Amino acid sequence: MSDNNAASAPPAPLTLLGLGAMGVALARTWLAAGHPLTVWNRSPGRTAELAAAGARVAATAAEAVAASPLVVACLLDDASVREALAEADLTGKDLVDLTTSTPAESRTRAVWANERGARFLDGGIMAVPPMIGVPEAGGYVFYSGSRDVFDAHQEVLAVPVATRYVGADPGFAALHDVALLSAMTAMFAGARHAAALVENAGIDEKEFGALLADWLTAMAPATAAYAGGPAAENPTSPAVAEAGDATLLRTAQEQGVDTALLIASAGSVSGM
Amino acid sequence: MSDNNAASAPPAPLTLLGLGAMGVALARTWLAAGHPLTVWNRSPGRTAELAAAGARVAATAAEAVAASPLVVACLLDDASVREALAEADLTGKDLVDLTTSTPAESRTRAVWANERGARFLDGGIMAVPPMIGVPEAGGYVFYSGSRDVFDAHQEVLAVPVATRYVGADPGFAALHDVALLSAMTAMFAGARHAAALVENAGIDEKEFGALLADWLTAMAPATAAYAGGPAAENPTSPAVAEAGDATLLRTAQEQGVDTALLIASAGSVSGM
Repeated sequence: MSDNNAASAPPAPLTLLGLGAMGVALARTWLAAGHPLTVWNRSPGRTAELAAAGARVAATAAEAVAASPLVVACLLDDASVREALAEADLTGKDLVDLTTSTPAESRTRAVWANERGARFLDGGIMAVPPMIGVPEAGGYVFYSGSRDVFDAHQEVLAVPVATRYVGADPGFAALHDVALLSAMTAMFAGARHAAALVENAGIDEKEFGALLADWLTAMAPATAAYAGGPAAENPTSPAVAEAGDATLLRTAQEQGVDTALLIASAGSVSGM
Repeated sequence: MSDNNAASAPPAPLTLLGLGAMGVALARTWLAAGHPLTVWNRSPGRTAELAAAGARVAATAAEAVAASPLVVACLLDDASVREALAEADLTGKDLVDLTTSTPAESRTRAVWANERGARFLDGGIMAVPPMIGVPEAGGYVFYSGSRDVFDAHQEVLAVPVATRYVGADPGFAALHDVALLSAMTAMFAGARHAAALVENAGIDEKEFGALLADWLTAMAPATAAYAGGPAAENPTSPAVAEAGDATLLRTAQEQGVDTALLIASAGSVSGM
């Protein structure tokens, strides 16, 4: 299949293992785009809905793997991938693992897949299910591992959500994924802390929520500098920063909000 | 002074206490706009620079207070305000306190100022010094306390940075200020955590920084929902969220990065 006639080639078949909210969202977009899709899930779950939409439902993961040269896994965790594929024949398969994992787990899974005769591409999904099939939502998937697998299937993989290849190291997709999700988790925790501070204070919560979102959106671009080292990032003097941190802590205490997040956040600052 | 002839009225005089980086930035904008400005700082610091730009430098805080009906304080912390003003005659003055403080400290300072014959307006600055005098940078100051003081001086106060009045409770400006700064602190700590994860991994730091900033900028608007309660905020199932949190923790351990921030962030989630 060359670039010239790719548009007219029939949609490639594939297999999807895992029908959680994310798996179902992915499956819908592939079915809608006309891809012959074989699905498997450990429990029946939402297989009926997908069968009605045209998916072939396999009785076992091994049967699902046998159905297509391209196998996409979107399971709960890395252990689920190992268990689901324990009885499957992976010879000659291209395994794309979108399951959230650590970099080390992904590297181990790559070796494991290669030993079973499969090529391996890891993926880390930067999106929640409602963003799948909605290009303007800005979601994407980090991919790393076999460049050949990425190039061979990029069009299929790009159907549900944009793709971004970040290197041959099969751990790099997970590393990017986890790093960005960790930062987001801390940001969300900060937002919860802020919300807890103003709770029951007589402040309009909706108005405050808008101020909070606007502020974080305005300040988020400054985080680009953090990856290059802390030197140029802080225009505030240490004394002012220290007085500021102390005020945040005292306010949390005044409002009866747990200070663990602030303490860990300040520790992260001084630790760099 | 009515709205009709405000533009043609001569710039109002004011006093500024405190010439840290923020105070100096504020002072420059008032001087540039032609406001007669009296300044005081505990140490000589940058008074010479401001005197050259037209500021009158007072020898004591009491002398500075006596010079103008409007007194703006931008000091290190609330204790500095109390100490600086201990000997000053506040009778008939309008005191605007931009010093970072807790809600309780601001309420106490309001009572304290009123007992000394002054009207009191508290402010919480949502900007770093480079954003002062740069309207397009999007900074602003939360104000709360005396609405009369705010209305009387809004034009002067809006010279360096936009104003946003959030209520008669003198603690509300500080509460808004600290809540938003706390959320930002956690977001920045999350960005540092992300940067630490990829450090020395062979990933282009500048490219990663851009991905990080784009991701947080894209996800920050979702924090608006956090102030209204956690019900509608998470489209991810508890099992998936738990597996995800565990993966973030394991990755930090793999990469040798402190897990305190993640643990505090997850605690913040389950605590709500």
